[in-house]
Amino acid sequence: MGTNVIGVDMGGTKILSAVIDAEGNILGTAKVPTKADKGPSIVIDRIADSIQRAIDKSGVTAASIQAVGIGAPGPLDPATGIVIFAPNLRWKDVRLKEELEARVGFPTFVDNDVNVGTLGEHVFGAGRGFQNVVGIFVGTGIGGGIILQGELFHGASKTAGEIGHIIVKAGGPRCGCGTRGCLEAIASRTAMTKQFQKAIVKKRKKSVLSELTGGDLRAIRSGVLAKAIRANDKLTLKVIKKTTKYLGIGIGSIVNFLNPELIVLGGGVVEALDNTFLDSIRAAAKKYALPNTLDGVQIVQAELGDNAGILGAAALARQRSGAT
Amino acid sequence: MGTNVIGVDMGGTKILSAVIDAEGNILGTAKVPTKADKGPSIVIDRIADSIQRAIDKSGVTAASIQAVGIGAPGPLDPATGIVIFAPNLRWKDVRLKEELEARVGFPTFVDNDVNVGTLGEHVFGAGRGFQNVVGIFVGTGIGGGIILQGELFHGASKTAGEIGHIIVKAGGPRCGCGTRGCLEAIASRTAMTKQFQKAIVKKRKKSVLSELTGGDLRAIRSGVLAKAIRANDKLTLKVIKKTTKYLGIGIGSIVNFLNPELIVLGGGVVEALDNTFLDSIRAAAKKYALPNTLDGVQIVQAELGDNAGILGAAALARQRSGAT
Repeated sequence: MGTNVIGVDMGGTKILSAVIDAEGNILGTAKVPTKADKGPSIVIDRIADSIQRAIDKSGVTAASIQAVGIGAPGPLDPATGIVIFAPNLRWKDVRLKEELEARVGFPTFVDNDVNVGTLGEHVFGAGRGFQNVVGIFVGTGIGGGIILQGELFHGASKTAGEIGHIIVKAGGPRCGCGTRGCLEAIASRTAMTKQFQKAIVKKRKKSVLSELTGGDLRAIRSGVLAKAIRANDKLTLKVIKKTTKYLGIGIGSIVNFLNPELIVLGGGVVEALDNTFLDSIRAAAKKYALPNTLDGVQIVQAELGDNAGILGAAALARQRSGAT
Repeated sequence: MGTNVIGVDMGGTKILSAVIDAEGNILGTAKVPTKADKGPSIVIDRIADSIQRAIDKSGVTAASIQAVGIGAPGPLDPATGIVIFAPNLRWKDVRLKEELEARVGFPTFVDNDVNVGTLGEHVFGAGRGFQNVVGIFVGTGIGGGIILQGELFHGASKTAGEIGHIIVKAGGPRCGCGTRGCLEAIASRTAMTKQFQKAIVKKRKKSVLSELTGGDLRAIRSGVLAKAIRANDKLTLKVIKKTTKYLGIGIGSIVNFLNPELIVLGGGVVEALDNTFLDSIRAAAKKYALPNTLDGVQIVQAELGDNAGILGAAALARQRSGAT
């Protein structure tokens, strides 16, 4: 029996594979571009190739590998390993598990990338030792995952954890999903960018963001936000204040409804900003949660950063294959 | 070993106790006034008395009784059976489990009344055969309970299921909990009553409610609402439309976030109104849930009515005592 597993973090632009031992040590990694435009079959070849290269670099034998775990975008069926729809890959009904197993010969387990990130934090990161955990990842969108009694909870339609689409302000800003007032439509980086554009372009507000982005406000990165906060930029602070308020409202609703032991906040925006960002979210959550409901609930920052994907995928491989 | 259990539904005005067999048949019941003003000790005497009378009426022996389950107003600790705070009983830190066990001699298990109602629907009602169920009860307030993997889910602070306090409209109507825009503040009977009062008293709108309530708009019962709907009362239909919209938004958020197999809707308002009420809620939920997330989710009406409390308490007694 093998003692190592492979964790694969599959994104729209790159594939990161790693050999990971039972203690969560990363023994070797390989990163390759996804090249999604070449179609699913080539992309799956590339995953197989990155796995082989990670094994080579780690110096372990193929016989020591128990299983492969993959975090993939999009609605997918974790039981069959079929990616139902992944717009950024242009995939539809791709048999990822089956196709990769045919190429690499290891049992392969697939789950949604945000679920896998949450599992990673649960097993190796900020969620260690907690049984009921909600992961919230704030980036271009807002994604989430739910751990109940130590395992990923998928729900009836395999879509559980869509925290970005709890409605916090009925009639509020239009969301990509077609409705209005979703958390993602108010508190994601995309939502913040819209607020910056409106203020700077339409209302001609002054902001260091104009300078920091060289005038291109279309894609304000999290690092740029961090710089603007350090520069005490009034507009940025105002938008950040609104963002933390709404993240607090979303978390307050989750605390009132599900009352998990731990909420782990991660993603590009959370990682780039400093502790006052997290403190503001905590303060807002406290305001919107019922008295006492927050007593047993901790709100903490994710610990694994860019490694959450591969470590979570390794944990997935280990849990689902029954490896110890 | 006994084969029957006692289920107790303890409310602010009445206590209903029942002997219930393993199949959920109600063998005998006894109802007594709570008399909360006499203090906890007298109330617990009265519970013990109602249990004895239910046993007498059912014709079973005391030896056949395995355990007692009680649904009590909460917040309470289901592990210790201590009612932490119950404003309508004026109870604070009452050792209900311990005190009742001393009086009746049967192992006693206590849980929140709304949790117990949800468990009742899960074991004996609309939720039979489903593993992950959310119960939503719409009355003067909005309460809820969560069943995960066939068991009540309590959460880190034992407060899980507070569906009435998910925030659906930030900055919306003020809620009794101190914040704004909670589901309960928009879609409970209390919230509807406020809307009727504002329209009829302040804005002088015409409505059959004035006549049906004899001019006393302070407590519009669910039955009166049903009559006003049948009379095609414009104001009532407008308020009901808003209510179903917001219940749909709350349910949409729950479907997106937790994605349970089944949502059971009960409580006075849901019971009194006809199927079009439930259909409107379903339509709104469909609008606010992400595409496909509702595929595996059913939204149904509760089946047990006033018996949900005693049947749920019986299920609680059976589950927690290990009775079969």
